[in-house]
Amino acid sequence: MSKAKPAPALSAAEISEILAVEFPQAFYDGSGLTIERVDYGDVRIRKAFHEDHLRPGGTISGPTMMELADFAMYVAVFSAVGAQALAVTTNLNINFLRKPAQADLIAEARLMKVGKRLAVGEVSLYSDGEDEPVAHVTSTYSLPVRS
Amino acid sequence: MSKAKPAPALSAAEISEILAVEFPQAFYDGSGLTIERVDYGDVRIRKAFHEDHLRPGGTISGPTMMELADFAMYVAVFSAVGAQALAVTTNLNINFLRKPAQADLIAEARLMKVGKRLAVGEVSLYSDGEDEPVAHVTSTYSLPVRS
Amino acid sequence: MSKAKPAPALSAAEISEILAVEFPQAFYDGSGLTIERVDYGDVRIRKAFHEDHLRPGGTISGPTMMELADFAMYVAVFSAVGAQALAVTTNLNINFLRKPAQADLIAEARLMKVGKRLAVGEVSLYSDGEDEPVAHVTSTYSLPVRS
Amino acid sequence: MSKAKPAPALSAAEISEILAVEFPQAFYDGSGLTIERVDYGDVRIRKAFHEDHLRPGGTISGPTMMELADFAMYVAVFSAVGAQALAVTTNLNINFLRKPAQADLIAEARLMKVGKRLAVGEVSLYSDGEDEPVAHVTSTYSLPVRS
Repeated sequence: MSKAKPAPALSAAEISEILAVEFPQAFYDGSGLTIERVDYGDVRIRKAFHEDHLRPGGTISGPTMMELADFAMYVAVFSAVGAQALAVTTNLNINFLRKPAQADLIAEARLMKVGKRLAVGEVSLYSDGEDEPVAHVTSTYSLPVRS
Repeated sequence: MSKAKPAPALSAAEISEILAVEFPQAFYDGSGLTIERVDYGDVRIRKAFHEDHLRPGGTISGPTMMELADFAMYVAVFSAVGAQALAVTTNLNINFLRKPAQADLIAEARLMKVGKRLAVGEVSLYSDGEDEPVAHVTSTYSLPVRS
Repeated sequence: MSKAKPAPALSAAEISEILAVEFPQAFYDGSGLTIERVDYGDVRIRKAFHEDHLRPGGTISGPTMMELADFAMYVAVFSAVGAQALAVTTNLNINFLRKPAQADLIAEARLMKVGKRLAVGEVSLYSDGEDEPVAHVTSTYSLPVRS
Repeated sequence: MSKAKPAPALSAAEISEILAVEFPQAFYDGSGLTIERVDYGDVRIRKAFHEDHLRPGGTISGPTMMELADFAMYVAVFSAVGAQALAVTTNLNINFLRKPAQADLIAEARLMKVGKRLAVGEVSLYSDGEDEPVAHVTSTYSLPVRS
């Protein structure tokens, strides 16, 4: 993209603080989630590996990947439009590409559109240290009316 | 559909037993999951309400709905082709339609295609006792080569 | 659904007239499209078979099916909220299920949600006379602000 | 990606020749389609602007975009696994992001996975000369058994 990107609306530390208060069901000590990088509409999240995400065949479960991707999109929305606790996912589409390693999962989320009503983004999920994605997600968030 | 449907490959009790052994991460005492009905490629699953699925705004979380839909599709695949522990989701698309009630979630899953390589289905999710779905899912499972 | 459905906002004849004027690129003499049934949020469209939709393997092309599904959703939106020429598709997801016959295509579209901002529906596509769908679509339309 | 990419299985000129013979319904003189670049699993296609793709509001139609994305994925599959005339789309998901300009459409398609049975990719669509995509597609092709 040739245009300079705006600064993020909130930093990683600010978003972490807000989510710990507003969204403790997902983002709590022991959730294994770390917000590693926050640029405008472009964030990186790490999910620590836990054995209890495994399923037959020894891989991290699909729902674990969907949950991480959804969380990463939520953070990406915050990075672009500020804390919108009532933003809600309207659509999520995931393609599972490869068996994940028994390692941390990394989500790279990037918004493709930030409109008045909708934000649309994509998330690539990787096993830590690998080049090829284990899953790819596109997702739409509906944004509350902002004044 | 005018043609008579085949009998299911396995009963609800048989699938429950197999999953408790093969898939205890998802299907365990306390998971809140009950396989309520199993016809051929057409199943109904109940997920008991727990407060810890809530998120800002007081609704059941998106990942909880995705996990239930994925589980329901897995059971629907078993109902059509027998126990295929290594069947894997390749694609899942979810549209979130309404705020769920603070009630059990019901998943009605129905296969639209059972091929040699792929099974494709749809899942409607309801709050128990409501007529209008809270979410709708389509999903594809890749089937292992069967002899 | 147990509740009585409202009457459609427009009849098949009314929608046909409006589209012939407002949307002649898609709905013109020779498009092969007929609006066969219009209930509230629930419509049936027929696309006449033409040889030029074939592709390698002798089937009707994917884009022909996507175009028909998108058109059927557009008509379903009209049936629920009236003529909204500026309603736009924001998301469309299609699963191709079976090789279509060399026959007319039938689209059965049904809205699952009619909100203030978004309408979400599903479309099943059939070869005329067949029981099993050849494709299944879910789609979201963004609705203009209505007064 | 850190690994060197393989050479494409076929060049742009070779793919153009094959498609003109095998897929003349889509790729013919006057289709407006040009295969501009072919790397391994990574291609660029141009669709010349024609007024008859317009719809209410003066934009290029959704089906035109879906057709171009599907064609670009087909070419990307050829670039990776050679001419597979019988490769078929099993799933396509499109998010419409912005109103396209009255200009050529550019498709950048990139495979994320090339497996034995399935190829999965994403396509970004642009109005010629613009930085921001007008639509984003993910799609899965089922590959015939290869010897």
